[in-house]
Amino acid sequence: MKKISQALISVSDKHNLQKILTVLKKFRIKIISSGGTFKEIKKLGYRCNEVSDFTKFPEILDGRVKTLHPKIHAGILNERDKKSHKIEMKSYNFENIDLIILNFYPFEKTLKESKNHNKIIENIDIGGPTMARAAGKNYKDVVIITKLDQYENLITELNENKGSTSLSFRQKMSEEAFTETASYDAMISNYFIEKNKTNFPVKKVISTNLVEKLRYGENPHQIASIYSYSLSTNLNQLHGKRLSYNNYNDIYAALNTSKSLPAGIGTVIVKHANPCGVSINKNKVRSFKEALTSDPISAFGGIVSCNFKINTKLAFELSKTYFEVIIGNGYEKGAVKILKKRKNLRIIDSSKIRLQNKSSIISNFDSILVQSPDNKKFESKNFKIVSKKKPSSKLFRELIFAFNVCRYVKSNAIVLTSNARTVGIGSGQPSRLDSCKIAIDKMNNFQKIKNTDEVVAASDAFFPFIDGIETLVQAGVSAVIQPYGSIRDKEIIKYANETETVLVFSKTRHFKH
Amino acid sequence: MKKISQALISVSDKHNLQKILTVLKKFRIKIISSGGTFKEIKKLGYRCNEVSDFTKFPEILDGRVKTLHPKIHAGILNERDKKSHKIEMKSYNFENIDLIILNFYPFEKTLKESKNHNKIIENIDIGGPTMARAAGKNYKDVVIITKLDQYENLITELNENKGSTSLSFRQKMSEEAFTETASYDAMISNYFIEKNKTNFPVKKVISTNLVEKLRYGENPHQIASIYSYSLSTNLNQLHGKRLSYNNYNDIYAALNTSKSLPAGIGTVIVKHANPCGVSINKNKVRSFKEALTSDPISAFGGIVSCNFKINTKLAFELSKTYFEVIIGNGYEKGAVKILKKRKNLRIIDSSKIRLQNKSSIISNFDSILVQSPDNKKFESKNFKIVSKKKPSSKLFRELIFAFNVCRYVKSNAIVLTSNARTVGIGSGQPSRLDSCKIAIDKMNNFQKIKNTDEVVAASDAFFPFIDGIETLVQAGVSAVIQPYGSIRDKEIIKYANETETVLVFSKTRHFKH
Repeated sequence: MKKISQALISVSDKHNLQKILTVLKKFRIKIISSGGTFKEIKKLGYRCNEVSDFTKFPEILDGRVKTLHPKIHAGILNERDKKSHKIEMKSYNFENIDLIILNFYPFEKTLKESKNHNKIIENIDIGGPTMARAAGKNYKDVVIITKLDQYENLITELNENKGSTSLSFRQKMSEEAFTETASYDAMISNYFIEKNKTNFPVKKVISTNLVEKLRYGENPHQIASIYSYSLSTNLNQLHGKRLSYNNYNDIYAALNTSKSLPAGIGTVIVKHANPCGVSINKNKVRSFKEALTSDPISAFGGIVSCNFKINTKLAFELSKTYFEVIIGNGYEKGAVKILKKRKNLRIIDSSKIRLQNKSSIISNFDSILVQSPDNKKFESKNFKIVSKKKPSSKLFRELIFAFNVCRYVKSNAIVLTSNARTVGIGSGQPSRLDSCKIAIDKMNNFQKIKNTDEVVAASDAFFPFIDGIETLVQAGVSAVIQPYGSIRDKEIIKYANETETVLVFSKTRHFKH
Repeated sequence: MKKISQALISVSDKHNLQKILTVLKKFRIKIISSGGTFKEIKKLGYRCNEVSDFTKFPEILDGRVKTLHPKIHAGILNERDKKSHKIEMKSYNFENIDLIILNFYPFEKTLKESKNHNKIIENIDIGGPTMARAAGKNYKDVVIITKLDQYENLITELNENKGSTSLSFRQKMSEEAFTETASYDAMISNYFIEKNKTNFPVKKVISTNLVEKLRYGENPHQIASIYSYSLSTNLNQLHGKRLSYNNYNDIYAALNTSKSLPAGIGTVIVKHANPCGVSINKNKVRSFKEALTSDPISAFGGIVSCNFKINTKLAFELSKTYFEVIIGNGYEKGAVKILKKRKNLRIIDSSKIRLQNKSSIISNFDSILVQSPDNKKFESKNFKIVSKKKPSSKLFRELIFAFNVCRYVKSNAIVLTSNARTVGIGSGQPSRLDSCKIAIDKMNNFQKIKNTDEVVAASDAFFPFIDGIETLVQAGVSAVIQPYGSIRDKEIIKYANETETVLVFSKTRHFKH
């Protein structure tokens, strides 16, 4: 237990000071402060010594140098149980500072509100983090408070211990202080990294905020949490059970896909992080129903994401099937009420979440793989019709639709579509031919393809052999889109021409593992 | 361009100082220093002013307070083009400090070398990061050097500009300074987080080091890099083309699997991040060959990982098939030479990499999912034989082998094994029944199962319906292992008993997406 005799307070956010001051007064703790905090404390009617009176040195350079003074830092950093330190402190007539309460200049807030570089730079706090780090280092003797939400704990701690604090409390506060300074400097570093357009800096420091602890991870014996670069996930849950780790994982897979579809008409159903049905249709109910019929068995217990506002008609349709999560890009009046009748159904409004241009990261063993997102826009110059038979513009659009879905299906991926809806998806296979067979099986099991319907196929990477495209064509596929690059590209073109199949080559491959 | 008149040097790593000092002298730059750095500079024969002479205040508290002085920080932080700052500087007779060269107390190194908490805490640098941050903030006027590998750039910059530096150089150095302080404090924060046993802190700051920029990401239009929590990946590449993003991803999938197999006898072949063949056998060549025969078509172009030293006999066998990467837990004499005959083959020695207990992280949109690894050890109490027919201890071991492989196959996963080798793997399907069918197809395509061979099946999660297990049994499977938890568990047990199938329930599920 350590008694507190003197505190230094320097906060840019001045909320809830009164509460703290009451307790400090109760335990006769002296207060040092400066600038705006000093004025606020006086205004609230408490005694307070100004930093410049304490150090006998004025605040200079528009406040850039205030607390960077030996008297302040010796007051924090001296080891109370060390005789030589005691002697030195006495010889300079220095006093202990046992409690530091501060929060830093609002760098992050300024960054959000302003594009004025000088203003942003001025909001890099030097004195605050220095005191936080000094007090954090000397936590054996000093309490460091760096966040408003620690005030209550401090008050409880002081009240329980009659003006003293426990070592475990000080050690915990020290942990949080260094987390604050690390996070603060990570933001500053990232600001400069962006400004300097540095790709892949020599050190990558990622700072994230806990959104919530999850019940468990992918499996019940794993513990898990979700963090965010900002303060929330921007997924607004309107109803239902808490989101699980696998829910989150599936929701993001669903949103990646649905946000890639033409706005306002796309539906995707995801199961085990893979799309199992995708459709675009101006009629909202049909958009959903056609996604569902792609593979109704897999869709059971899955996640539906519509990139449009869900209306009451659709809500009624959605209620007929068991899904774990429904995601709407907003909801029309009355729709949520209908969906809520399913007690546990998780209902998400995704209208606030935006596609990120951020690098994706994934950890393995001691390492982290970082890559830019696969958000390449499809333009016609990326595609080349290589078969004699040319596609109509409708068929070409169908091919692009299929190819786009393909990039969200785990590799190897084969996607069959017809009339702007998937009719067969083959995913996650080590052999491309197997993915073809799975997609065809799905189509044959669940679809009634009329003779007049054209079925197209997309492949996320090139066919290494002719067998894949052969299998597709024999199953009734009339147009194929695939990246080029195989040494057998010519054979494949020849086969397409022999079978009067439309063949389009893409410049880009879209693996996703 | 800004001329440098005075520099402050304070380095814990004193290598390469001479080079810097020569240049500083050449451009008549005054030097301030303290403690060990001061002594070293004098020893090297250069003029140098001691910090305590400069500030007229002694170093106190065993060096805890040295540079935390207004004269130092005003010297760094004053804005040279601001009149009011100029006047203040003059009135106190303060001098500009235009260049800071420092590196921090070796916190990370101490952490690696010592378990002495006091020693670790004493290696938290307060003065160094404060000067780095102050100079970084005032980069318009000040150069901040925080790492030895910046010395050469500084020297070039000074020589090219006759003792001055450019704004872009100073801005880049500022970026790197804040990256250093962020990373430094992230390590301190993590030290306290571990010490306090804090699960999922309110902020998670991850600091990693660039290992290498990769040619591209999962696809050629994505840029990518690999970072490490330590300084390397601990994968020792002995030969072949540079590792690609997908190589790394596959290598880690392979290592996760092979490290889970009984030591010294396990081989796994991975394609598209999924195992397509796994086997355990004391005979090294057979261990590999049996993994290969599981699915020789998928294995083509894949990645082989042996959890034992590869010998010449095996190297010769491995050379017969086209693989992208061979991973050995070391190599016996002569083996690498044989493998090297394949010019592009990437040969990896994995003997230095260790399974981590670190949480895995994966980013989506603005958020990061964090979970503890699925490294649960299999113990007999986790398994319950629920069928009337009981497995022999050999068959039980076979079931555990299959179930273990299952946890490394992407969900939904079905793994068929016989005689300690996989004979069919179904992966990445939204429907469990489809995974069963894929696994069975693989078995029927590639295996010659004798009547006397027992085939067992493992499922990563429970069967929701009877159809999955029915399909497996009809294909010749005589024993099944699966987690329990379906409302139809009883029906499944009944079906097992009717067909004299061995059925084992596991308490744990092993999804992997």
